[in-house]
Amino acid sequence: MKVKLGIVDTTFARYDMAKVAIEEIESMTSKVEIVRYTVPGVKDLPVAAKKLIEEEGCEIVIAFGMPGPEPIDKLCAHEASTGIIQAQLMTNKHIIECFVHEDEGKSVEELIAICEDRARKHARNALRLLFERDWLTRHAGQGLRQGHPDAGPLKH
Amino acid sequence: MKVKLGIVDTTFARYDMAKVAIEEIESMTSKVEIVRYTVPGVKDLPVAAKKLIEEEGCEIVIAFGMPGPEPIDKLCAHEASTGIIQAQLMTNKHIIECFVHEDEGKSVEELIAICEDRARKHARNALRLLFERDWLTRHAGQGLRQGHPDAGPLKH
Amino acid sequence: MKVKLGIVDTTFARYDMAKVAIEEIESMTSKVEIVRYTVPGVKDLPVAAKKLIEEEGCEIVIAFGMPGPEPIDKLCAHEASTGIIQAQLMTNKHIIECFVHEDEGKSVEELIAICEDRARKHARNALRLLFERDWLTRHAGQGLRQGHPDAGPLKH
Amino acid sequence: MKVKLGIVDTTFARYDMAKVAIEEIESMTSKVEIVRYTVPGVKDLPVAAKKLIEEEGCEIVIAFGMPGPEPIDKLCAHEASTGIIQAQLMTNKHIIECFVHEDEGKSVEELIAICEDRARKHARNALRLLFERDWLTRHAGQGLRQGHPDAGPLKH
Amino acid sequence: MKVKLGIVDTTFARYDMAKVAIEEIESMTSKVEIVRYTVPGVKDLPVAAKKLIEEEGCEIVIAFGMPGPEPIDKLCAHEASTGIIQAQLMTNKHIIECFVHEDEGKSVEELIAICEDRARKHARNALRLLFERDWLTRHAGQGLRQGHPDAGPLKH
Repeated sequence: MKVKLGIVDTTFARYDMAKVAIEEIESMTSKVEIVRYTVPGVKDLPVAAKKLIEEEGCEIVIAFGMPGPEPIDKLCAHEASTGIIQAQLMTNKHIIECFVHEDEGKSVEELIAICEDRARKHARNALRLLFERDWLTRHAGQGLRQGHPDAGPLKH
Repeated sequence: MKVKLGIVDTTFARYDMAKVAIEEIESMTSKVEIVRYTVPGVKDLPVAAKKLIEEEGCEIVIAFGMPGPEPIDKLCAHEASTGIIQAQLMTNKHIIECFVHEDEGKSVEELIAICEDRARKHARNALRLLFERDWLTRHAGQGLRQGHPDAGPLKH
Repeated sequence: MKVKLGIVDTTFARYDMAKVAIEEIESMTSKVEIVRYTVPGVKDLPVAAKKLIEEEGCEIVIAFGMPGPEPIDKLCAHEASTGIIQAQLMTNKHIIECFVHEDEGKSVEELIAICEDRARKHARNALRLLFERDWLTRHAGQGLRQGHPDAGPLKH
Repeated sequence: MKVKLGIVDTTFARYDMAKVAIEEIESMTSKVEIVRYTVPGVKDLPVAAKKLIEEEGCEIVIAFGMPGPEPIDKLCAHEASTGIIQAQLMTNKHIIECFVHEDEGKSVEELIAICEDRARKHARNALRLLFERDWLTRHAGQGLRQGHPDAGPLKH
Repeated sequence: MKVKLGIVDTTFARYDMAKVAIEEIESMTSKVEIVRYTVPGVKDLPVAAKKLIEEEGCEIVIAFGMPGPEPIDKLCAHEASTGIIQAQLMTNKHIIECFVHEDEGKSVEELIAICEDRARKHARNALRLLFERDWLTRHAGQGLRQGHPDAGPLKH
């Protein structure tokens, strides 16, 4: 039986990161069944993720969001993040947050590149949490980044 | 049997957004029964929404509020938003937050236009979450906005 | 049998708002029995309110506090407010927050006037939530204020 | 049988406020048994207090901490305070927070005086919450302070 | 039977603090069995720690993280810290947070020294909470620090 992997995302976001992640996951494994749930904005994500876990039986969820550039958008993202952490504690399942802030990139091209890189890498992280936890421990403290090149480990 | 849709709103707000949303909902479907609960201010909304879900059997709630322009008002809105997310996690039901900040519009006319547009669009979002989740997934990453024109998807 | 209405307040506050509220309530109805619980500061209010609801059987609570003018006082008030919202979600009962910030008034006279007006109006709000919810819905979106004159509804 | 009063404190703090509080309590009553639990820093206090309540049977807890002067220290204190309020709501017991910020005093002497005064007064507050709640209500709105002279009630 | 001590850490961090802590623990006692769980970033730590407690039977957990230097990184760390406190309250177990902010050191050398000192000292703190609580009480109010030299107690 396949393991269910949930994807929650928003109509507010300006890029379809979930699509990128789904492609990545399907290219890497046939062991998961993807369940997708789209909501209006990032503040709707925590309960959507919790519903996928508790009502649909997902073992892990990835939450995609793209907060806008204004202070109010940053605050919404903070509230959503707090809720996503709470939802994890209530279910004992991981919900990987994959947010890209609209002001992270200096150009549309850069912003899209960040979205694609972060979505792909967090898709792989979700699979590792499910099937290959050793990989993560082997890379502990290695300064891995999603959306940007790895920072790498500190060197004397 | 009709699905119960809850509406919570405040006497603090300076525009009756709930009325706009109720008109929108009733023009679109006869499948829902609306239950309305008005409280003094935004900080009273989370428990009011939770009561509508747990004591009145609502399947979804829309929460309307209009925080004032001062820093203390912004903080109240943040506290209310945090509570609304928590209430969702405790009930596994969506509570769509529809707040308009009093300083979002440059004129009274603009502020009213924001209120009406956001109330209508979030009313439709509530119906989609109830009856037409596919619509939302088809519009994932499309930069939809409520209260303002859509931002649209990022384009190379 | 009377409905129990809880009042929690502090020794930190510099004005006895609870007394004003009790007078207001007793002048308006004989249907409620008031239970009062005084604690040192605002951060002690959330659990005091929850104890009144769960251990004393109160149907609703009003929480009075007067945070000081310093940033640390503002932060304490924020923490207390967050706890008050949480306590409501855990009990499904309203706890009306009636806080007056010490720097809200330009003079002692103005500050006292704010305290009295806010305490009275929130006492009435508590009674409406108990006995006359229709009143609140009839005043939805009307820009009602406590401690200050009503802002009124937005007008084209 | 004696009532158990818990004391949680830290090795991070630069003054032994718990010792002052214990002396104060023992000089005032023989009705309580004090249970002390020392942890590394303020963020360890919430669970320590909850453990004293749920695993040791304490009826009330006093939590002592001394956050440092940097912004990061202020944030730690905020997180700890939020957790202390949550722990109270989960147990329906009071946890009196007695924090002294390292930058509250202009000199070491002043800082120590604040520590001693606040520890003593909150020790008395804990006893009042246990045995003499009337005292607190008689002093509601009287502007009592801990660590500093009382502000007193507002006077026309 | 050995006591299980959990270690959660991240691939985001740029130094392997967990390794330092494991060496320290193994050099000090043979009474504990270490269970390690590596996740992508600090926001994944709260649920990972809770899973180690509830699913693996850990008696205590140490959570290692290294937030970046940007405001968004500080906010992530705050969200993680809030979740770590919540996880403790839900399990009644200690989760010692051992975070080093990337801008804490003026050079790479200093940053590494902070990481090593903090990891070692918090490893010892975890053992004291498990086996030697008296040590902590004997050092209450002594201004102990991790990552930096002890501040020491206030002196007249």
